Amino acid sequence: MRDVALGVDVGGTKSLAIVLDARGQVIGESRVASAASSPEALVATLASQVGELWRARGLDAGTVPVGVGLAGMVDRQGRLAFSPHLSHASGTDVAAALGLALSRKGVAVDNDANLAALAEGRWGAARSYSHYVAVTLGTGIGGGIVTNGVLQRGANGFAGEIGHVSLVARGELCACGSRGCWERYVSGDALTRRAREAVAAGTAPRLARRYGANLVSEDVAAAAGEADAEALALLEEMGWWLAAGLANLTAILDVSCFVVGGGLSALSHHLMPPARRHLGELLEGASARGDIAVLDAALGARAWAMGAALVAGGWT
Amino acid sequence: MRDVALGVDVGGTKSLAIVLDARGQVIGESRVASAASSPEALVATLASQVGELWRARGLDAGTVPVGVGLAGMVDRQGRLAFSPHLSHASGTDVAAALGLALSRKGVAVDNDANLAALAEGRWGAARSYSHYVAVTLGTGIGGGIVTNGVLQRGANGFAGEIGHVSLVARGELCACGSRGCWERYVSGDALTRRAREAVAAGTAPRLARRYGANLVSEDVAAAAGEADAEALALLEEMGWWLAAGLANLTAILDVSCFVVGGGLSALSHHLMPPARRHLGELLEGASARGDIAVLDAALGARAWAMGAALVAGGWT
Repeated sequence: MRDVALGVDVGGTKSLAIVLDARGQVIGESRVASAASSPEALVATLASQVGELWRARGLDAGTVPVGVGLAGMVDRQGRLAFSPHLSHASGTDVAAALGLALSRKGVAVDNDANLAALAEGRWGAARSYSHYVAVTLGTGIGGGIVTNGVLQRGANGFAGEIGHVSLVARGELCACGSRGCWERYVSGDALTRRAREAVAAGTAPRLARRYGANLVSEDVAAAAGEADAEALALLEEMGWWLAAGLANLTAILDVSCFVVGGGLSALSHHLMPPARRHLGELLEGASARGDIAVLDAALGARAWAMGAALVAGGWT
Repeated sequence: MRDVALGVDVGGTKSLAIVLDARGQVIGESRVASAASSPEALVATLASQVGELWRARGLDAGTVPVGVGLAGMVDRQGRLAFSPHLSHASGTDVAAALGLALSRKGVAVDNDANLAALAEGRWGAARSYSHYVAVTLGTGIGGGIVTNGVLQRGANGFAGEIGHVSLVARGELCACGSRGCWERYVSGDALTRRAREAVAAGTAPRLARRYGANLVSEDVAAAAGEADAEALALLEEMGWWLAAGLANLTAILDVSCFVVGGGLSALSHHLMPPARRHLGELLEGASARGDIAVLDAALGARAWAMGAALVAGGWT
């Protein structure tokens, strides 16, 4: 148990490091472009980011604990076993390599969505729940599962890969190699794809005129902000798919709360109402269940790094 | 902790009661038709079956613990909250009503598939696994989830309703009210439906000639036993669907073992090889995972009642 810990969240494009105290207060932070071109570059960038933040905050490099969250399947030893989003670093023992680079032992490395689940449970939206899933909507979908107050890691450490639950047997091919994965239907990329399909099919003529055939999810978000009916219809449909995935998780896990965060949560006021509405229709025995809370995450873009510091600090 | 306990498994058509000792040896058993026409009939039949078995074995009705497994969503208090297969008894507090009928407290009531998972973990195929799912294939699909050696019950007691994970968004309507549920694609009923579709579509002319348009799953099983290629193709396809559901469970739970039992397991030598073969293709990061054992259940048709006795006896 330490007073201060350092947590890093490594995504596909950027790396966020924070210094956190045991009450969850952020007392220092840095952001750099992530270097996922090779395992060596990833570790070197991480080590230099951590070192600079240590120096900038006047911390003792020998004692401040360090935790790292990675977007991918991280095993219980801290090895990035598989990652579609950090594919060049797949197979890297990040815990060992970073420990070596920082001349220290005991670097905690875990899946980023697992860490977000712990942080939201300690300081965020899931504080009063002991059975919940933290759902991270971004480029893909990540998940951290907590049951009876305990993070579920699974046999290898890979539990919570909820973005790769197939909702459409033999459906669209996913980056993971499987088909019909949830994240093919609910993500920034999915919104871009659906919008282009609608434009190509002629069902979104206003979006077509305004943004052309190569519109992106941000265009849909902008149009939805102006209450454009075509954009809202696309988001309503995505809210249905969000609910479909939550219903499957509920059938298996019987959680009473979902905490939804990640980059796509900028659209949460369009996505969450239909998701809440449709969840009941999609559940076996909905009337026999208590209310299931579908909540916005509370910790924003820092949740993953905060969770990394939480684990490193031994505050779980 | 008792030396002997009584466990009852109540299915849609029959009720099996057994007397078990703490080593898992069956020392008495009885089978009656289950009376699910009303909650009162269900409880009266149960009470009379238990009472007769008590007397027949010369047991002390006041002390022998009793456990009951029900096919449906059972809450943590032992109330059958929802059940498509015992629909007349939905909402019944079976634990309280049976306790009253037997003049005793502390009747343990749980979902039948949860109980099978515990029994297979203690005495059956999952003995050496601490992360596994027991999958019951019958009229529908039931599931019991064990992670880190602990049965997952969820917030309400409803965890493990794996038959109602949707594999086909907006797919076939299920008895539960939702669509595309796994058990619509893998079950005795599903096999009957697929076979009739194949006959109607003209893709199974030999089955059509032999069994007619109203053939049932047992006909397919008989033909498969004679290596009929049309029947084997139907079972190969069902094995793919079995794998698809197991892949979804693996993505979420990262278990290292599935134990497959239930009435449909009479076809396991046709279903399990394709299920094992396809599971790898359907998993994110399959090469990064250890082997996932897909095993036949070891305890046969008594697994549910044995699990009920296990819980009642306090042997977990």
